[in-house]
This record gives sequence, structure tokens and C-alpha cells, in this order.
Amino acid sequence: MNVPSTNDAENNLIKLGIELPQAPSPFGAYIAAVQTGHLLFLSGMLATAGHKPTVVGIVGKDLDVEAGRKAAYTAALNALSLSQKQLGSLNRVRRVVRLGVSIAATPEFVEHARVADSASELLRAVLGEDTMSTRLVIGVASLPFGSPIALEVILEVT
Amino acid sequence: MNVPSTNDAENNLIKLGIELPQAPSPFGAYIAAVQTGHLLFLSGMLATAGHKPTVVGIVGKDLDVEAGRKAAYTAALNALSLSQKQLGSLNRVRRVVRLGVSIAATPEFVEHARVADSASELLRAVLGEDTMSTRLVIGVASLPFGSPIALEVILEVT
Amino acid sequence: MNVPSTNDAENNLIKLGIELPQAPSPFGAYIAAVQTGHLLFLSGMLATAGHKPTVVGIVGKDLDVEAGRKAAYTAALNALSLSQKQLGSLNRVRRVVRLGVSIAATPEFVEHARVADSASELLRAVLGEDTMSTRLVIGVASLPFGSPIALEVILEVT
Repeated sequence: MNVPSTNDAENNLIKLGIELPQAPSPFGAYIAAVQTGHLLFLSGMLATAGHKPTVVGIVGKDLDVEAGRKAAYTAALNALSLSQKQLGSLNRVRRVVRLGVSIAATPEFVEHARVADSASELLRAVLGEDTMSTRLVIGVASLPFGSPIALEVILEVT
Repeated sequence: MNVPSTNDAENNLIKLGIELPQAPSPFGAYIAAVQTGHLLFLSGMLATAGHKPTVVGIVGKDLDVEAGRKAAYTAALNALSLSQKQLGSLNRVRRVVRLGVSIAATPEFVEHARVADSASELLRAVLGEDTMSTRLVIGVASLPFGSPIALEVILEVT
Repeated sequence: MNVPSTNDAENNLIKLGIELPQAPSPFGAYIAAVQTGHLLFLSGMLATAGHKPTVVGIVGKDLDVEAGRKAAYTAALNALSLSQKQLGSLNRVRRVVRLGVSIAATPEFVEHARVADSASELLRAVLGEDTMSTRLVIGVASLPFGSPIALEVILEVT
């Protein structure tokens, strides 16, 4: 197993001019994150701001690929914000072990990878090339509150 | 990382008057649970009893939110029963690291969180507040045997 | 926790006359596999060969159960190939901790377990009875590039 170099995520946020939103709080009888050993599991991150969806709809019907990408970016910002809150600093992220991307999509939709890349690219830009994740992308029937995106995130942390 | 207090799940079952069903056995070429380190992974738990679905259908079309909640409760009882069988005692559960809830739902459905809460609330009542999980909820097209619910469960155990 | 016996996967491949395909490379801003501790996470494995789907469609509408099983087998071959590439030898696999099977399926489809068994049976035949996994099977709306199958794989490795 490679020992990844310490990342410089907090500086990257400043360089990129990214201001993280408030970390999302749970919508039910669960908690935002659980750490077990060196693994930090996040709850599903939606395209939400302040407990409200920023966009609703099915990609391939109500929303096009660009709108899906924007929703994935919003959900990834939420994942970064929550990770920062849990860890104190994003510099403590060693690896994104798993990024799961559920896209509310039609049966005919085939451009899932382009939508998911929007989240992957943000995480790579902020956390650094050395933290790149495995990825699992599926098109689902529907998501909580009509969100077009739900992200699964498992991090390896120091 | 917090060290969670030992839970009192076996007593909670008695206090709540909950009698666990027989633990579900696999429907194919897989096994019910795998432990790796301190993590116990369960196979997908459906709304079944004795290898038969207790209810079939799509939430938002064939089934309403209450029927979905009942199915999620049944699947969560199965998860508790299987965990007890694997561990000898539910008191060995330190944390529910991940509860994933797949709901067979229509594209228009938006009340996934209410359905999933039924499983979360049962786990919290039995395993205790300190064991609360992260959660990932999606609406899928269909599930094995027509079950409206499939649960993903990862536990941290002593 | 049981200590599984060392498997004999590389010999099994020869005995079974299975020639593994080239390991799939990523379709976007992610990497093929990440190891953390003794766990190896693979990216989602599709029914692809050389970055192209070997079959496209929805099981229960465009494809029957047999076609779904064939796609699941192809995805499982990809998982074996990628694991071999990452680990040097499949003999280093101690357990399949989780096999997740997402099947692009209609709302009416109920034979998910038969489709998923095709992947499970291949992994069992090659990696051995002692490595058998937990399993989580869902029917989704659609998958990247029209693939009818996406596999989630988490291995425990030496």
C-alpha cells in the first residue's frame, strides 16, 4: 500500500477561491458522519443548501447533463464542508477510498460518467491528485427530496 | 474518534417487547455476513420472513409511505436478528457505521427519508443513541423478489 | 473472526480454462482501485471490454435473465482481472467482503438474484468457497454507457 503524501487541501481551497457552504445536517434519525479506525464514512450528500434542494428533477428528462453536473458539484461541496467540520481540517484526508454517485436518471440515460466527473474533478482539485478515489456510478429512480444527486463518500484520514 | 459506551441492546429488546424473527439465510451463492477487522458487513436485508417477501410493490405506486415504513421495519428486524446470530449478542455492536436504504420507488417519489427513518428508529431504539449510523438513501427501480426495501448494514463490533 | 485459508485462485483459473481480459481502466476522474489497510476497494465494474460495453439494455425489457447473467459474468471477469493486476496474484485475496450488484432493470423485474448469482458463482469458482461474500443486489434505472450491470467489490487481501 502506498503511503500518500500529506495533502494541501486548505490552501487549495483558498487558491481556487472556493468558499465552502455550511455543512449539511441530518434529515432524520441518523448522524452526519462516523469514523471507524482510519475510515470516515459520510452520510449521503445531496444537492442541498440549508436543508433545501438547490435543484430537483430527473436527469435525462427534467434536467440535462450540465444541470446534473452542477448538482453533483453542489453535493461534492457539501461533502468537503462536512469532512472539514468533522476533521477540523481537510488536510487530514489521505485518500478518498470510495466516491459513489447515484444520479436520478431515466432508463435511457447513458452519460452518467460526465455527470459524476463534476464531483470527482472538484474533489481532485481540492484534495489533490494523490487522494483520487474509486468510483461507483448508478442511475436510480428517485432520490430524497427530489435531489438529482446523492453522493456516497468514504475517506481514509490521518 | 469517540470510544462509544458499551450498549445494552439485549436488555432493550426485552424492555421494548421485541421478539426477533429467525435470521434470514442467503438466496444464492453468497453468505449472510462477513467480518473483517472490527467491521461486520451484512448481506442486503429485505422485507422477508422465512425466505418469502412480507410485502411486494413499488412505493409511490403500489404502496404508500406507511406500507414502505412497515417494510423497512421488517428489514431492520432481520438485520438485528442476523447481527445477533453472527455476534452471539447484540451488546457487541459498538456503532452502526453505515445504514444504506434502497427503496423501490417511482421517479416522482420524494418521501424516502420518512420510509428510511422507520429502520433507523428501530436500530436506535434497540442499539442505543450512541450507535447511530450514517445513512445513504436511494429510490431504485426494483428489488429482489419484489421487496420494496433492501438494507445495507455495516457495523463496528467489539 | 475466522482466518480463511490461503486460496488457490491462480491455479483455479488454469483448471477452469479461464483467460482473464485486460483490466478495465477508468472512464473519468477516478482510479481503478484503492487499498486501505487490508481492504481493497474496486471501482464499479461494468460489462465492458476495452472501454466498450459488450451489451447494452435494461433487463426485463431489452434483455432476458440469461443475457443479464452473461453481462454479470463479464463484469465479474473484469473484477478478477483488475484484482489480479492490483495485487500481483489473485492468491492474495482472503475474502470478498462485499459484492454489490446493480442491475439496470424494469420496475416489474423480480429475478435479480438469478442474474447476480452468475457473478457470485464465478468468484466462488475462482477464489474458492472460503472467500464467499456478502451480497447486496438492487435494480436500478440505468447504468453508465448503457451497461446492464455494475459491480461493487470490496476485498480483504493479505
